[in-house]
Amino acid sequence: MNATELHNDAIVIDGLICSKWERALFEDMAKGGLTAANCTLSFWDNFEETVRNIVEMNGLIEESSDLLLKVRTTEDIYKAKREGKTGIMMGFQNAHAFEDQVGYVQVFKDLGVGIVQMCYNTQNLVGTGCYERDGGLSGFGHEIVAEMNRVGMLCDLSHVGSNTSKEVIDASKQRVAYSHCLPTGLKEHPRNRTDEELKYIADKGGFVGVTMFTPFLAAGVNATIDDYVDALYYIYNIVGEDAIGIGTDFTQGHSHEFFEYLTHDKGYARRLTRFGEIVNPLGIRTVGEFPNITEALLRKGFTERQVRKIMGENWVDLLKDVWGA
Amino acid sequence: MNATELHNDAIVIDGLICSKWERALFEDMAKGGLTAANCTLSFWDNFEETVRNIVEMNGLIEESSDLLLKVRTTEDIYKAKREGKTGIMMGFQNAHAFEDQVGYVQVFKDLGVGIVQMCYNTQNLVGTGCYERDGGLSGFGHEIVAEMNRVGMLCDLSHVGSNTSKEVIDASKQRVAYSHCLPTGLKEHPRNRTDEELKYIADKGGFVGVTMFTPFLAAGVNATIDDYVDALYYIYNIVGEDAIGIGTDFTQGHSHEFFEYLTHDKGYARRLTRFGEIVNPLGIRTVGEFPNITEALLRKGFTERQVRKIMGENWVDLLKDVWGA
Repeated sequence: MNATELHNDAIVIDGLICSKWERALFEDMAKGGLTAANCTLSFWDNFEETVRNIVEMNGLIEESSDLLLKVRTTEDIYKAKREGKTGIMMGFQNAHAFEDQVGYVQVFKDLGVGIVQMCYNTQNLVGTGCYERDGGLSGFGHEIVAEMNRVGMLCDLSHVGSNTSKEVIDASKQRVAYSHCLPTGLKEHPRNRTDEELKYIADKGGFVGVTMFTPFLAAGVNATIDDYVDALYYIYNIVGEDAIGIGTDFTQGHSHEFFEYLTHDKGYARRLTRFGEIVNPLGIRTVGEFPNITEALLRKGFTERQVRKIMGENWVDLLKDVWGA
Repeated sequence: MNATELHNDAIVIDGLICSKWERALFEDMAKGGLTAANCTLSFWDNFEETVRNIVEMNGLIEESSDLLLKVRTTEDIYKAKREGKTGIMMGFQNAHAFEDQVGYVQVFKDLGVGIVQMCYNTQNLVGTGCYERDGGLSGFGHEIVAEMNRVGMLCDLSHVGSNTSKEVIDASKQRVAYSHCLPTGLKEHPRNRTDEELKYIADKGGFVGVTMFTPFLAAGVNATIDDYVDALYYIYNIVGEDAIGIGTDFTQGHSHEFFEYLTHDKGYARRLTRFGEIVNPLGIRTVGEFPNITEALLRKGFTERQVRKIMGENWVDLLKDVWGA
């Protein structure tokens, strides 16, 4: 089976994407052969704003039902594959949307949200993000983790502080994930993870999705898809072939204002970081180029079986474990 | 001047009261000779709920305008004294009401809120309360302190964790207060303050209001007003005669459900503490017995000048400094 055949046959999961939700993107997802993607619907939004974002995405899925379907279970992912569509997995990058209500976890699960990052960059009621001093998982955070475990919602730790992350890994009775991260071993950055952190989550049954956001890669804006695969290989050597997948962090279609929103606390308060130029690695600049990842993984020497696991099967196994179906 | 004459002549401030807001209480405030009181209008409430609490209090002040007036400046406190009324100072025990909006500080100031406690018992976006591990003042918390300084709103630290309290004291360009606390030196309790903490806030120009909540007193429910004055004297010996006042924490009129609300995170989640029986010290069981404090302070040996300062003048000086008027 050549790379193209393999890519077309494989389950292909993007574990984190926060592009602009519009028809052009959904067409690019089809071009890229995406079986399903974890689409971010909340960063700094409160409960009501987040519900509106979900309503909007429900409408987009309805409008583009020739290309999309909504994913609530892993069976829906297989269905998307069978029908040649892309499954939209609803996710948040901030538990802020739960506000102070443990009961909102079930509410969002019922609305179709399957993946929630505990903190986004800064402190919330649950814990602290990776761009400030981190006091760890709060008492309320322990309640939220237990409730996410109960309803079947994946705890994502990508932008979560080091202390809070470790305590979520310890507190969770379900597998947890860094849905989109890169290794400190290749570049020092608040968003990157040390070898010890990567080993710790894997040892506890967790999962690592590898991102390609160039500010976190050593080569920066000059990175190519092979630099990306090298970073993935670095993580693979720590976590093994069963606990690794893709989490692109694609932001295509967004304007400057979107990045200003992301890089300020609460979307408007003090600046937390500057990314500089936002450009993906050469060879994987758009979602439509997803087949190039399969090809680059094979070129790196991964077997067909390993490529299938990395491209999507591991993600599906993780979600089946956490969602229970 | 005897005790009664002194009490009637003095400015009498209760730096923290969270009783049930009703006509019977306002009549008891008149009986007690209260010139003004910091009335809690938000514990676990979000922005909208808190605004409704303010609307309700505005209505009560209107209805009982023969007894009450609303305080926005210290001039309003003097006006209350001249008119023989009690001034209602609006306060919160939790910065949670600001939600994630720095701009809500000015909004609440405009609505008449002059005193806000940074955290209530647990972690919020600003810092952490005294009933869980405390990671300190967050980046957003620094922004909130600066904004409270700018608009002229007192930072209250009574239920705030030790680390967050210290960092607020350091960060604030205005004087700050423990509006209602007792010393660890007389009883170990998460809500009580060590000698070092009391000295620290006083050295930085801050203020300590002394509470009489019996679970925090060594004698517990058997405490009398003299035990209260002994505790006040203990703190006076640390902070001096200019940085001390009263903050009763009176809860009269409330039912069991109110204390259940206070002692659970967010008002409903996990239990944080149990108070047991709620009864104030003998001699100061109700707001109407406030004159007994003046009498007990004189009996303890405080001079008339010192009693005037403790009973209210120090509070007015503090508020004038912070509010700017």
